[in-house]
Amino acid sequence: MNVLQETIQHIQSANKEMMEQARKRVDALCKPPGSLGKLESIAVQLAGITGQLLPMIDKKVMIVCAADHGVYEEGVTPNPQDVTLFQTLNFSKGGTGVCAIAHITNAKVVTVDVGVKGDILPDAGIIIHKIKHGTANMAKGPAMSREEAIQSIEVGIHVATAEIAQGAHVLGTGEMGIGNTTPSAAILAVLTGCDPLDVTGLGAGVGKGGIEHKAAVIKKAIAINQPNPKDIIDVLAKVGGLEIGAMAGIILAAAAHRKPVVIDGFISTIAALIAYKLEPKVKEYMIPSHASEEPGARIAAELLGVEPMLHMNMRLGEGSGAALAFPILDAACSMIKNMVTLEQSMNLLAER
Amino acid sequence: MNVLQETIQHIQSANKEMMEQARKRVDALCKPPGSLGKLESIAVQLAGITGQLLPMIDKKVMIVCAADHGVYEEGVTPNPQDVTLFQTLNFSKGGTGVCAIAHITNAKVVTVDVGVKGDILPDAGIIIHKIKHGTANMAKGPAMSREEAIQSIEVGIHVATAEIAQGAHVLGTGEMGIGNTTPSAAILAVLTGCDPLDVTGLGAGVGKGGIEHKAAVIKKAIAINQPNPKDIIDVLAKVGGLEIGAMAGIILAAAAHRKPVVIDGFISTIAALIAYKLEPKVKEYMIPSHASEEPGARIAAELLGVEPMLHMNMRLGEGSGAALAFPILDAACSMIKNMVTLEQSMNLLAER
Repeated sequence: MNVLQETIQHIQSANKEMMEQARKRVDALCKPPGSLGKLESIAVQLAGITGQLLPMIDKKVMIVCAADHGVYEEGVTPNPQDVTLFQTLNFSKGGTGVCAIAHITNAKVVTVDVGVKGDILPDAGIIIHKIKHGTANMAKGPAMSREEAIQSIEVGIHVATAEIAQGAHVLGTGEMGIGNTTPSAAILAVLTGCDPLDVTGLGAGVGKGGIEHKAAVIKKAIAINQPNPKDIIDVLAKVGGLEIGAMAGIILAAAAHRKPVVIDGFISTIAALIAYKLEPKVKEYMIPSHASEEPGARIAAELLGVEPMLHMNMRLGEGSGAALAFPILDAACSMIKNMVTLEQSMNLLAER
Repeated sequence: MNVLQETIQHIQSANKEMMEQARKRVDALCKPPGSLGKLESIAVQLAGITGQLLPMIDKKVMIVCAADHGVYEEGVTPNPQDVTLFQTLNFSKGGTGVCAIAHITNAKVVTVDVGVKGDILPDAGIIIHKIKHGTANMAKGPAMSREEAIQSIEVGIHVATAEIAQGAHVLGTGEMGIGNTTPSAAILAVLTGCDPLDVTGLGAGVGKGGIEHKAAVIKKAIAINQPNPKDIIDVLAKVGGLEIGAMAGIILAAAAHRKPVVIDGFISTIAALIAYKLEPKVKEYMIPSHASEEPGARIAAELLGVEPMLHMNMRLGEGSGAALAFPILDAACSMIKNMVTLEQSMNLLAER
């Protein structure tokens, strides 16, 4: 049995009894029932995930998975491909968008090279699990082999498991990969059976041919590879990406170790869909974050059945939206821990 | 000249030159231009407000204004009226919803009695500026006199000015007042000219007669008092509330002292509309927070021309949504301060 299968087998449902206890406490707090909306449901969810009535989520780790995409050569984006390498190196220096946002909750940012084109030196502060130098061009054949797809998920499992072993209370998914909205839209088109044009957006800037060309490339990739929508590993391998697989692995590992995982925007939500197709129970461990500007993001969130909380018109990726949602988890934990119950507050006032 | 007029005269536009400098820096950061969406516009806005390229917003103060409403006797809410007094006392004990959420950014919570029915002892940790023991029943006559309405705004100005003098970098508006969605909806109905039913919601729970009764009470209050929509003080006096006036004062004072002010949900947005009608420049100092569940909240935000960022299905009030938005301001400040520019990051990598 491989690491992926083992991880999936370890995933159990959240602790329903603790969720009931948490719901009771949340309802007893000094406020109209339900009036703190999603803060309440997150507090209940965190209690179910961690098995603690007053969950502790101090140590936050954002894992940024980086890889390149062979489909780049089809002209789906105007950005130079070596931006992937360039930005990956930047993450370890603390000056990127996700680093600045992670800073507000002292979240650690960990970067993993799952398949960046070009070499990263061992002293660069990047965890290196390079499977290959970017995927193959999916417009001409499969992006990767089935084995490589499984390997990419296992990279995410390894890195997330190591962070959890080091004390992480909550993980976030982030990515860097020039061109990666293209495989994300491709996966979504396969899973929904919709026209690629409906799930294709600007990404970090679209190439000369515009969105129509990008969608046409996706159509071609699907036609050539014929991914089987009922076999999610087949979809990931044929029209996916190495960093997308790795993020699915992070989500699976978080669930297997009963840790919450905050999902970033479009590309992360696609990874979440992959994890969900492998084991639906992972959904109980996921917390959505922001509504990305990408048109596919809304469709992916609906398909997964999650509702992003932050509407910031953001489309940077890197895990920036997930990092911005970390304080919301802090607020949920503070609510269940620091708010008094109606009864407690009546007693307090009676003492006066 | 009274305090209100003086404050309004002090309000100037944000520093446009500093906003341009901030926009240039934000655009030069290591990311596709615009890809951090509202974080970028907030950073630019904060630079314009504070006159600092790298704004400092460490000291956060949430001011919760409390008052009662004579319209309570019309049965617009099932909650006991003394919950206002009860919760007001709770704020100073740190166990309410807004206190728990403010905790995540170490924001101070200040509570002001602008017109709570019943007496609060001087040692209760509440700032007492009681104008009267709740407004009069607006379904039978004006909620307050024109002088009282101005006084309520001036209470907000006094308290906000004192907090700013003590070092507050950013303020938030919060409120407590059983029945206060009713005057809020009434003000909005007067300003928009719409049917009160369109802007009336559940509040913290609606009375026996349902939303229809609540809307009918508002209709009656407007018919009896005939507030002049072109005279916002007249509207506040006739169908408003003491805490609503005080929050408008907080917003005016923040603008006069060039400090950002985060607006909570429905009732706060109505106060923001009042401040805006008194001096449109205040809008440059406002930052919206969450989209309240109240139907009037969306209409009020559209009328004011602001777009809430947090979609949490919250409807507690107290400033809870504004407190939850404080970390977003931290993220905007961290972005402009801690992200490197594209040029810097290229130099850094060249050094390797």
